Amino acid sequence: MSKINKIAVFTSGGDAPGMNACIRAVVRTSLYLGYDVAGIKQGYQGMIDDNIEDMNRHSVSNIMQLGGTILKTARCLAFKTPEGMQQAYDNLKKRGIDALVAIGGDGTFTGAERFSATYDIPVVCIPGTIDNDLFGSDYTLGFDTATNTVIEAIDKIRDTAESHDRLFFIEVMGRDAGCIALRAGIASGAEAIMLPEKDTAISDLIDMLEKGAAIKKSSSIVIVAEGDKNGGAFGVAKKVKETFDFYDTKVTILGHLQRGGSPSSFDRILGSRMGYAAVKALINGDYRKMVGLRGNEIVLTDLKEALNEHEFKLEDDLMEMATVLA
Amino acid sequence: MSKINKIAVFTSGGDAPGMNACIRAVVRTSLYLGYDVAGIKQGYQGMIDDNIEDMNRHSVSNIMQLGGTILKTARCLAFKTPEGMQQAYDNLKKRGIDALVAIGGDGTFTGAERFSATYDIPVVCIPGTIDNDLFGSDYTLGFDTATNTVIEAIDKIRDTAESHDRLFFIEVMGRDAGCIALRAGIASGAEAIMLPEKDTAISDLIDMLEKGAAIKKSSSIVIVAEGDKNGGAFGVAKKVKETFDFYDTKVTILGHLQRGGSPSSFDRILGSRMGYAAVKALINGDYRKMVGLRGNEIVLTDLKEALNEHEFKLEDDLMEMATVLA
Amino acid sequence: MSKINKIAVFTSGGDAPGMNACIRAVVRTSLYLGYDVAGIKQGYQGMIDDNIEDMNRHSVSNIMQLGGTILKTARCLAFKTPEGMQQAYDNLKKRGIDALVAIGGDGTFTGAERFSATYDIPVVCIPGTIDNDLFGSDYTLGFDTATNTVIEAIDKIRDTAESHDRLFFIEVMGRDAGCIALRAGIASGAEAIMLPEKDTAISDLIDMLEKGAAIKKSSSIVIVAEGDKNGGAFGVAKKVKETFDFYDTKVTILGHLQRGGSPSSFDRILGSRMGYAAVKALINGDYRKMVGLRGNEIVLTDLKEALNEHEFKLEDDLMEMATVLA
Amino acid sequence: MSKINKIAVFTSGGDAPGMNACIRAVVRTSLYLGYDVAGIKQGYQGMIDDNIEDMNRHSVSNIMQLGGTILKTARCLAFKTPEGMQQAYDNLKKRGIDALVAIGGDGTFTGAERFSATYDIPVVCIPGTIDNDLFGSDYTLGFDTATNTVIEAIDKIRDTAESHDRLFFIEVMGRDAGCIALRAGIASGAEAIMLPEKDTAISDLIDMLEKGAAIKKSSSIVIVAEGDKNGGAFGVAKKVKETFDFYDTKVTILGHLQRGGSPSSFDRILGSRMGYAAVKALINGDYRKMVGLRGNEIVLTDLKEALNEHEFKLEDDLMEMATVLA
Repeated sequence: MSKINKIAVFTSGGDAPGMNACIRAVVRTSLYLGYDVAGIKQGYQGMIDDNIEDMNRHSVSNIMQLGGTILKTARCLAFKTPEGMQQAYDNLKKRGIDALVAIGGDGTFTGAERFSATYDIPVVCIPGTIDNDLFGSDYTLGFDTATNTVIEAIDKIRDTAESHDRLFFIEVMGRDAGCIALRAGIASGAEAIMLPEKDTAISDLIDMLEKGAAIKKSSSIVIVAEGDKNGGAFGVAKKVKETFDFYDTKVTILGHLQRGGSPSSFDRILGSRMGYAAVKALINGDYRKMVGLRGNEIVLTDLKEALNEHEFKLEDDLMEMATVLA
Repeated sequence: MSKINKIAVFTSGGDAPGMNACIRAVVRTSLYLGYDVAGIKQGYQGMIDDNIEDMNRHSVSNIMQLGGTILKTARCLAFKTPEGMQQAYDNLKKRGIDALVAIGGDGTFTGAERFSATYDIPVVCIPGTIDNDLFGSDYTLGFDTATNTVIEAIDKIRDTAESHDRLFFIEVMGRDAGCIALRAGIASGAEAIMLPEKDTAISDLIDMLEKGAAIKKSSSIVIVAEGDKNGGAFGVAKKVKETFDFYDTKVTILGHLQRGGSPSSFDRILGSRMGYAAVKALINGDYRKMVGLRGNEIVLTDLKEALNEHEFKLEDDLMEMATVLA
Repeated sequence: MSKINKIAVFTSGGDAPGMNACIRAVVRTSLYLGYDVAGIKQGYQGMIDDNIEDMNRHSVSNIMQLGGTILKTARCLAFKTPEGMQQAYDNLKKRGIDALVAIGGDGTFTGAERFSATYDIPVVCIPGTIDNDLFGSDYTLGFDTATNTVIEAIDKIRDTAESHDRLFFIEVMGRDAGCIALRAGIASGAEAIMLPEKDTAISDLIDMLEKGAAIKKSSSIVIVAEGDKNGGAFGVAKKVKETFDFYDTKVTILGHLQRGGSPSSFDRILGSRMGYAAVKALINGDYRKMVGLRGNEIVLTDLKEALNEHEFKLEDDLMEMATVLA
Repeated sequence: MSKINKIAVFTSGGDAPGMNACIRAVVRTSLYLGYDVAGIKQGYQGMIDDNIEDMNRHSVSNIMQLGGTILKTARCLAFKTPEGMQQAYDNLKKRGIDALVAIGGDGTFTGAERFSATYDIPVVCIPGTIDNDLFGSDYTLGFDTATNTVIEAIDKIRDTAESHDRLFFIEVMGRDAGCIALRAGIASGAEAIMLPEKDTAISDLIDMLEKGAAIKKSSSIVIVAEGDKNGGAFGVAKKVKETFDFYDTKVTILGHLQRGGSPSSFDRILGSRMGYAAVKALINGDYRKMVGLRGNEIVLTDLKEALNEHEFKLEDDLMEMATVLA
């Protein structure tokens, strides 16, 4: 690999709050250290379509507080084909781009790893997803903001007048990972949490709620991750009603609003640190790595390892604590 | 009717942000003017159960910013029976309560009117409901906060990365009245608004969205009032997908979070003014009235009239404007 | 005056939340009705500097939720000279702009009136200022959002642990007008409100606070408009401390954060309605008018009248109510 | 030390968001594990005044989302005397309280350590302060929320119309520690950060700002920690104006609003974990410890060590990064 002159950054997959802080950090750190920098719009699709723009420090002014990503994201099937990859590579070459910072999740990393291996182009990845389901980092970018968004919604539901037989089911994101459900469940004092990783029987849920009723809880909130085996919040609500028809059940589905919102301080700083570290890693020759946060330290993990390992982040101690405190 | 010595206040029906400001105003105005004051918990049910407490100015300290109602609400079938009403009346009499301020919606007013007529007890009503569907007031208590809550949610959805074929359906409250949907639709720049008052055909919605697509809108947001004839947000989404299967549709159901949250400045001031005016009305002998806001003025409407009239609040000019600006 | 073909919109003076909704409405209504439309950057300065851009419907996509104004504002002394005005007029003429929508306050209106009279160019003005101090409209654009911003800040101060001898002074905007102070004072339950319109003696304030202490208030919040005669929050705090040195006083100065923030639903709808009405007024030949909201209706006021009249908006009934409820 | 039967919890010093989550966790964990539990109001003062209440699981229902502390705090000089400590001890003994969880800062810990040593009573401390200035924990309770509060305020200031010669000075909390200033400065993209730990000369600040002006920044934001040597935000603003009188400077002093607000998800979970761990530590005989968070793990530090060590938390790498990204 030859010397790096120009770095490009892109976001891919589902967007996450904090991505803009990260883009800003990549751009400004690159410029500060004397490198040119470009932004690729709509992820791999933009790479193929040559939807690429050179960036200067003003390209990223006043973006840190914005939700979403100014570079946008898109799904891109074409990048999975050799022709697509070749087209992307040709575009990068034409523009003198010789290193990449990729911000996204699992799918983004897979593409980045293959692309880097095929064309011997330096790539560093940054975990940007609200799901917090990646190996190699205690927190993914956007998770903190998403959890705050969820608890603000639940706080409002808590406000509503309480009666003894009312059950609120709130569906949160998490097809495979219950991280948002667990953290938001603890932080909102939910009476029960239904996770994709656990196969909670409806009868167990009922038991839990009845115990609550017995100790005179006036209303109950159940967090349901969308990947829960019972069919999400509506599925759980329906099954509970079949068994105990006296319950007045109400369903809220938060959906995509969990992806948006102005990023929290935590995510802005995390995004800044990760972007800053990604550029430094590229320059140091640390290729095919993922940037992560371990404790209070920024660390690098081999991209292959990050993709192969699957961290069971659903901390058992937190799960146990949730039960004690509910 | 004899001279008033002691006023009681209660909230009934669905709770609404601003009710606490209103309770505070009733309590403090009563005391200021030399009357005793009590709070009835859980509406008519508390009247029957004698769940009543004397209140002083500290009973309502630091409550203005809280969502919900410190007096709680409850459904009460018993109050519809002569025996229930008699029990309620006996409890009030026993406690020396000789006037009432009722905060709630349609159902609350109906009970209040009948109770007042039957026992010749002075009652003034205050429109507390997020639906803005009552005659005699430009705004009901809680509507402003609820609309703000909805647009904050939609703003977050707008943040998410945009693609040409993505449709977001957001279900908001409004079984019979589309006020929240219309106002929130305008304020969030929604591409389409589905209201219970209008029978929007799915084909018309599709037309509207395709026109949007033609003028290169990157993503579209459709607000669906829960009372929409097509079956709420899921119903509309399903039907759209049947016709145009290429759409990537996402559904959010805001549900009860629209009832909660710290009240807006508008609702706190409205609640304060209405509570203040209600006590003054009682003292002036203006019974069986509803307090309302017309323009910037507090007005009284005959309770019977408020119940019989049905205001078509769905302002046609706003509806037309929504179409022009979308 | 000849037929209008192209309308330009600009913002001037201090910016206010809701201006973007208003710009969007002017642009989209103009286009919808078949007129060309341009945006002038940085108010009168941009008119002189020819900092003007044609706008289409996408120029105003996704801006409604943003604070500030995408067209920016600037002070402009040059526009007060005949040469400046002539230069501005020449630029407009060159670009075929033959009608203006001006969004701003007092100073903006004065310039607009003179310009329109001098060059016989149709102008309609929209009251955009957080101060709510203009004649001809119950509400100015931005006032509702600013009041919400202030009460959210005060709510947080209320949260802090209470002690008997702690006094919080919070300075809010309002050099000449106490509208924000009064409304925010009521909505936050402040113990006292210091307004520029009233000459509250420090001894009266002390009396008020001691009465509060006597009835066992745990902490007290005093709202001070920046135009208060005692020298703002620091001035009041200093004088109180001189008299009663046992008080633990804390000062917060909210400053310019009151101008920012995502606009409330109320301001977005108000801005939309005003922009929509301004274009219609221009087309109907209603020149040199100010658009206002009276009750729930949009009304037009003669610009000269709006400038000459000074509405004493500091509603006495609200002031009295504030005292009763505090 | 004999077996523990009853644990009491109290908050002391400046209050911090997340204290309620922590109180809730102490109460519910104690009960769950079979211990009695009491709450002491107003910290050491309440211990001396016997302002103590037994708590059950409902005492802490629905408090997690509230700012401040339901147990309140107070300064207490009397506890520094042997007589005060003796009185406090007698009250605890009378009520059968034989272990304490103290939530607060430096001063709280000093008192707790001395009390525990003098009377051989088990105490575990929890770092509750927005300043993040304690040894033994990456984060103190309330720091995350406070930082979010600050950046939300700054985001609003960023919204206001931009001009080339406007400087905003925002004073944030931090008498001795610049943690809030540094983190909030990074997260809000401030152009300069003035910390108590650094002696930034006004001339250096001017240089920094002029560099910004040279690269065409439209407006600049300077974060000033209250402990900055130049006299806080007003002091810095005054000195800058003396040198460069063309600057239009605006000052915001956030003050006590930084202590309030509903706690973030991070602080609610941190508070829950720390409260849970504190009770477990007491039961395990781990006395005179401080509970802290290191990375993602809860750790215990010797209370004496926590008091003697002074961690320089002002991470140099973050400071450097702030300069690169500004």
